Amino acid sequence: MTKATNLNPSKLAMVPFVSVDNMMKIVNSIGTARMIAEIADYVEADFLRWKLFDKTPRVAAHSDEGVIELMPTSDGETYGFKYVNGHPANMARGYQTVTAFGVLARVDNGYPVLFSEMTILTALRTAATSAVAAKHLAPKDAKVMGMIGNGAQCEFQALAFKEVVGIDTIRLYDIDASATQKAVRNLSNSGLNVIACKSAEEAVAGAQIVTTCTADKQYATILTDNMIGAGIHINAIGGDCPGKTELHKDILLRSDIFVEYPPQTRIEGEIQQLPDDHPLTELWKVMSGEVPGRTSDNQITLFDSVGFATEDFSALRYIHDKLDSLNHFVELDLLADPDDPRDLFGMIQRSATNPNNQMHAGQKS
Amino acid sequence: MTKATNLNPSKLAMVPFVSVDNMMKIVNSIGTARMIAEIADYVEADFLRWKLFDKTPRVAAHSDEGVIELMPTSDGETYGFKYVNGHPANMARGYQTVTAFGVLARVDNGYPVLFSEMTILTALRTAATSAVAAKHLAPKDAKVMGMIGNGAQCEFQALAFKEVVGIDTIRLYDIDASATQKAVRNLSNSGLNVIACKSAEEAVAGAQIVTTCTADKQYATILTDNMIGAGIHINAIGGDCPGKTELHKDILLRSDIFVEYPPQTRIEGEIQQLPDDHPLTELWKVMSGEVPGRTSDNQITLFDSVGFATEDFSALRYIHDKLDSLNHFVELDLLADPDDPRDLFGMIQRSATNPNNQMHAGQKS
Repeated sequence: MTKATNLNPSKLAMVPFVSVDNMMKIVNSIGTARMIAEIADYVEADFLRWKLFDKTPRVAAHSDEGVIELMPTSDGETYGFKYVNGHPANMARGYQTVTAFGVLARVDNGYPVLFSEMTILTALRTAATSAVAAKHLAPKDAKVMGMIGNGAQCEFQALAFKEVVGIDTIRLYDIDASATQKAVRNLSNSGLNVIACKSAEEAVAGAQIVTTCTADKQYATILTDNMIGAGIHINAIGGDCPGKTELHKDILLRSDIFVEYPPQTRIEGEIQQLPDDHPLTELWKVMSGEVPGRTSDNQITLFDSVGFATEDFSALRYIHDKLDSLNHFVELDLLADPDDPRDLFGMIQRSATNPNNQMHAGQKS
Repeated sequence: MTKATNLNPSKLAMVPFVSVDNMMKIVNSIGTARMIAEIADYVEADFLRWKLFDKTPRVAAHSDEGVIELMPTSDGETYGFKYVNGHPANMARGYQTVTAFGVLARVDNGYPVLFSEMTILTALRTAATSAVAAKHLAPKDAKVMGMIGNGAQCEFQALAFKEVVGIDTIRLYDIDASATQKAVRNLSNSGLNVIACKSAEEAVAGAQIVTTCTADKQYATILTDNMIGAGIHINAIGGDCPGKTELHKDILLRSDIFVEYPPQTRIEGEIQQLPDDHPLTELWKVMSGEVPGRTSDNQITLFDSVGFATEDFSALRYIHDKLDSLNHFVELDLLADPDDPRDLFGMIQRSATNPNNQMHAGQKS
């Protein structure tokens, strides 16, 4: 390397960036269902390494209109974090309720190795995590899932449960019928038997798995106690921040509850309705075989999902592993890399007078 | 806008990105000294709005080899954070000790509005903050600064103190003579009288301001008590993480100490050598006139600088304000922006079949 005479950014200065457009290309080249299943393997592999991870509740900046969060974690070799916002009023203003991006970096030298959009990737990892949990908790041979809330997460959940859990039928309900119609349309070639329902009761009828995924930022009762029979697995996704829940408390009291990271779920999940000492089981312990998951045909299991930093880490790790083979990324010169690390000033000075300083990705003169 | 038929990323999906190369273009088009002075105005303006800011110590992930930190803050309208690593062993391996990047976002909708390199920008804001502090604390008519440690921050400090404080002479010393030679070379056209010294004692002789900026991650004694006479202002930059200090404790005991954010400085600054109740003055109170800065000709003032999130926020805010007029950035499609926010899945599906999906910045097929 002839760094002394080469003022173009060195390889060390470059960080691969996966844009929204390139993430869509990645999803479409692998196939949504297969990609979710592959991410599910990464999520499960990282849950099995649970004790290695630095775990901390997300760092949240709350305002009247929403929240901006940073979700960092590390396995000791790789560090990752996600930036994610949640602004319920955004949809009415033509903005996304949730947008996200994330970074992976090397722990040994602190250099970022991936910068990626994560709005799409979060949808994939959320579905992957739900499906991994259900693989361990849902009744064997579950074939029918009722899904209440047919928003942005709906189709990803449907495909995840088909691919990872083996369901063949999905029963859809949303208070907004156009959301259900959208999901029916999008899932028309999925291989699933897709049934639009006129009520939540109709959607859960005959289902072995019930997924709730609504978006209101408030205490709501999407499921009442009488709608949940013995033996059901509930996959509760929408209760994911303080003041936002979906299930009637009586359902929680009849369920065995499984969570990602108790300190975060106690604040954000359905269990914010319960006393702080209500018994929970950590999902990683079920996956590792340390404690049993489903123990009887009559048991109601509840995955109280809020989304945890390790799942984003797993998804970013997956994308990073796929980079070279798929080649859907650009390099950004994000890191200053002077020839002499002590000579940052000189690097800037020389860049002003070097006529050969070429344009490259991430630049505009 | 015809979003329904236009699958190219909408304006809402795009986030301006300032690469290292473009940051150098910005610095060179404005001029380093002038840009530091302009950032100093932003830093001071934000210190004067101190009570508005969400303040929290940085979120650090420590390892044997270094640290990766996230530094978030918000003024209620705008949110910002910086990612920064510190790995002292990096230099010997051909990597930067510190690299950084940052983001600004709107609090009301959570959308990022700027993504920027911050290795260069941090150097500028650190120098700007030192100079702003010295403007309030250094002896009137200070003309000579001694600078111990001539690494990456050295020239920025020199220009900042020339531009903002009015010094005309800088006396340089580093245990590595080649670092001093580098700084002498880089400052040859700065308008400063630049003097290379053979010892720290020689560098501080006759100086009204002493800046310490060394990089070892350990307790060190760059300045001993006998080197600091009455009336000196000390600008201590290098003591900026737990276990890293530069000044002998006796100097601290003779000084009036000024800090950015006490909860962070108590952990990271020179004052980690002192009891937790040692009296301090917050810099913003001096700037606002709430408490006096320098009160006598004999007083030793010490700015125990560790770098705080609001300073990065100020620097990012400055860059954001300059974007349109300077035009040194590219747009990245970082945010998924489906026509119907509930139809993220459909957006991905349609992108696979749309032949008109154009290439744009941040993409590679």
